[in-house]
Amino acid sequence: MILTVTLNVAVDVTYHIDHVRWHPDNRVTSVARRAGGKGVNVARVLHGLGREVVVSGLAGGATGAAARAELAASGLADATVSVAGESRTSTIVVPDDGEVIGFSEPGPQVTAAEWRRFCRPYQELVTQAEIVVLSGSLPPGVPSDAYAELIRVARATGVRVVLDASGEALTHALDAGPELVKINAEELAGHAPGADDLAGAAQMRREGAGAVVISRGHEGLLALTDEGAWRMAPPERVCGNPTGAGDAAGAALTVGMLDDSPWPQRLVDAVALSAAAVRAPLAGSFDPDAYRRYLTEAGTVPPVQIGVQP
Amino acid sequence: MILTVTLNVAVDVTYHIDHVRWHPDNRVTSVARRAGGKGVNVARVLHGLGREVVVSGLAGGATGAAARAELAASGLADATVSVAGESRTSTIVVPDDGEVIGFSEPGPQVTAAEWRRFCRPYQELVTQAEIVVLSGSLPPGVPSDAYAELIRVARATGVRVVLDASGEALTHALDAGPELVKINAEELAGHAPGADDLAGAAQMRREGAGAVVISRGHEGLLALTDEGAWRMAPPERVCGNPTGAGDAAGAALTVGMLDDSPWPQRLVDAVALSAAAVRAPLAGSFDPDAYRRYLTEAGTVPPVQIGVQP
Repeated sequence: MILTVTLNVAVDVTYHIDHVRWHPDNRVTSVARRAGGKGVNVARVLHGLGREVVVSGLAGGATGAAARAELAASGLADATVSVAGESRTSTIVVPDDGEVIGFSEPGPQVTAAEWRRFCRPYQELVTQAEIVVLSGSLPPGVPSDAYAELIRVARATGVRVVLDASGEALTHALDAGPELVKINAEELAGHAPGADDLAGAAQMRREGAGAVVISRGHEGLLALTDEGAWRMAPPERVCGNPTGAGDAAGAALTVGMLDDSPWPQRLVDAVALSAAAVRAPLAGSFDPDAYRRYLTEAGTVPPVQIGVQP
Repeated sequence: MILTVTLNVAVDVTYHIDHVRWHPDNRVTSVARRAGGKGVNVARVLHGLGREVVVSGLAGGATGAAARAELAASGLADATVSVAGESRTSTIVVPDDGEVIGFSEPGPQVTAAEWRRFCRPYQELVTQAEIVVLSGSLPPGVPSDAYAELIRVARATGVRVVLDASGEALTHALDAGPELVKINAEELAGHAPGADDLAGAAQMRREGAGAVVISRGHEGLLALTDEGAWRMAPPERVCGNPTGAGDAAGAALTVGMLDDSPWPQRLVDAVALSAAAVRAPLAGSFDPDAYRRYLTEAGTVPPVQIGVQP
């Protein structure tokens, strides 16, 4: 079982619209609401790939209840812990003719007691997991070394860890030695300002990451691992909703870790699944036909190995 | 009692933020949720002015229930009728450093039976009202001549009508002879393309409106009435959240109609209350200190009478 952790569970509202004007009253053409947060997106993709997955994390208030109801309706195993505060809503606006724009609320204020209430069942869940995936922002009140603590619990049990975090949470988490860190180029720039992606990834490995994969939008992926370093271009420039594309890449890399696939194959899978996610209208979904096609196409253009000392 | 009608009740979500980037993940600094829709905003302002007001309209689903709960918590008399569909959410993003941007959902699909279920209690409520205020968009399924029908019911009972509508709903409603139409310049341009505001207002009077007031943002108000025509500048250029400023002007004009104030005084009141609404963080609210101050200041610079045949 893969255990995903989403400490800041959201309801993701996705608006499709012809065109966004800088105007107080853009009329949207369609509305979708479902559970979100990076870890939920990863779990949904893993579930879509037929992998056994459990969603854990923190969810509260009417928004948390709506997120939980949607997880159940989608057939995702829900082990989220309730908090008193109101979970956040994330709104993403996808125009037919341009780039997406989105807005995230800060999330509920979590008390120390609530955080402890998460940690106890987590220790139990970890013993049943093969991989733990820790993804996304921490809500207010959760200690900034929360991921570090969760990584230490997992490692102490011999469970492998995939981390997608940023800022202070990332800095602390690296100390605890996650086996794989997957972040995007913007998050890397926040962590290692001024460094190029390769230098930033190397810095993160020195700071404790086992392997580092950077998702770089239209430029694809950069991976720095014990076995080597690679760049992997996306199969094509895909138009659609890029929200959750990085989470789809994270899901593919998690499957690759679980299956102990060679790194080049993991990267082929990650760019194919990520591009197939852009083609699906909602974060956490992917277009299965496009995925199969991209997998074939990407497989014919393998990752480019970079001549650096890993 | 003033009866406000909001056929497309919303939950208004207001995000305050330092700065909006064209980016999928703008982190908002504060979140407020409350019942909205133009008629609800008008009712909230009237309630804030100490006037007796009843909120009627259509509300459905979890969003409708949340709107109703908030109306009750705010002390607003709620006579909304339930529909099976999910009421809409309107999101407005107010940056510290720029213009607002917002997104409106289309609203619930209303059945013919639900529309009839609204009309029966409306006929009763109208008999207790001195003025009916009809404001905002029609949700899908409500006939485009809905406002015309509601105006005819009110006029048959001798009740005065204030209308704030646009598009086809406005065109039909003019036929029924509302005593006052208050719309903004953008809505006027939609109704009378190519006409300047004065010509457009004159056209609307020929089409059935008793008086017409056009709200023109930073340029203030233009009024065309049986008693004359005026332009009224705002007391100052106000920074803040302009959402609901037009509804505050509508509330002031409704009070002026109720009190049978002279038109110049109504316009002074409308620009003062509208500017005080921009200074309040949420639509439907106004800054009472600013309102008193603007009222004094605006009173010293009376409306400019325009030399046209009213």
